[in-house]
Amino acid sequence: MAFSPLLQNLVNTLRCLPGVGPKSAQRMALHLLERDRPGALALASALVDAVENIGECSQCRTLSEDDVCDICSSQSRDRTLLCVLESPVDMMAIEQTGGFNGVYFVLKGHLSPIDGIGPDALGIDRLLDRIDQGEIEELILATNPTVEGEATSHYIVEQLRDHPVKITRIAHGVPVGGELEFVDGGTLAHALAGRRSLR
Amino acid sequence: MAFSPLLQNLVNTLRCLPGVGPKSAQRMALHLLERDRPGALALASALVDAVENIGECSQCRTLSEDDVCDICSSQSRDRTLLCVLESPVDMMAIEQTGGFNGVYFVLKGHLSPIDGIGPDALGIDRLLDRIDQGEIEELILATNPTVEGEATSHYIVEQLRDHPVKITRIAHGVPVGGELEFVDGGTLAHALAGRRSLR
Repeated sequence: MAFSPLLQNLVNTLRCLPGVGPKSAQRMALHLLERDRPGALALASALVDAVENIGECSQCRTLSEDDVCDICSSQSRDRTLLCVLESPVDMMAIEQTGGFNGVYFVLKGHLSPIDGIGPDALGIDRLLDRIDQGEIEELILATNPTVEGEATSHYIVEQLRDHPVKITRIAHGVPVGGELEFVDGGTLAHALAGRRSLR
Repeated sequence: MAFSPLLQNLVNTLRCLPGVGPKSAQRMALHLLERDRPGALALASALVDAVENIGECSQCRTLSEDDVCDICSSQSRDRTLLCVLESPVDMMAIEQTGGFNGVYFVLKGHLSPIDGIGPDALGIDRLLDRIDQGEIEELILATNPTVEGEATSHYIVEQLRDHPVKITRIAHGVPVGGELEFVDGGTLAHALAGRRSLR
């Protein structure tokens, strides 16, 4: 004896959400049906709206319903500073710090030959074109500090070997507020190697 | 600088799901848009389908798109045994044990005067009517072992004070596979008080 077919279908489709297993999906389905039917309908229409209208910004490749996203079209951003990221979430994380006023380029992934993800899929040709246009003075590589993220950064640096643009990589080290004791060895090694003079 | 309006709307509406905070909602929205757009559309249509078509079974009050649910309309269930539960999830949990062949009555909640939930909201009058019809021989009270669940069971017992139907309460005790050491005092007290003779 299972749930009724429609309910079972709802439980199954809820599992397409990341981090949602069979039990959570069941709890979500029952919660929506028993206590929040307007919420369920609002969610359904937000999903359809988003899927149908959100594409990517033609300049930075982030998710946006406009051809050029708010950041790329803003007059107050510094267009000489370009930050390269793996995903729109990373872009949000940097925006939320409020400490960066340049523009972005979102790779939407990292180089991963095993999964068939090459430079084309990441739009690296478009990134290089943009740098060739000469407006950008500094390229900040902010891919993730993982093997794939490092490889992707390394690849971009290689491609720009003969180009005079300044290239930087975000600093890796001990997280602010963290305790040395709980920091992994790789990070600690980075923190030591990247030490800065105080006086 | 926030997400684009449509994306922000999707993130906000995802938060109507239980257990989904701002960070998970963001992760879900980006996952759907970047990697699983067909899944998002399937979820949207499952939500609309479920909300529009799933009502409650006219006999047991569980969620069902049919007027009478599969269990209530089944010919192979024992209609003399009625199990009273707080929610459709509890019904699923009991069904999944495969050890119960009676029928159910779902209260969809528990008595909670503070929230304005009285006997009417729980359909207790319908439950009593059904018992009055005389087909039911045993009423198994399987409300949750919480203060409200116990109070609800107690209320039902009170209402049936002059009725000859047999009334039982599910056993409370040490969970199978659990260790005594980690069982709370209340449960342990129940387990001792409800001890059974082995020979």
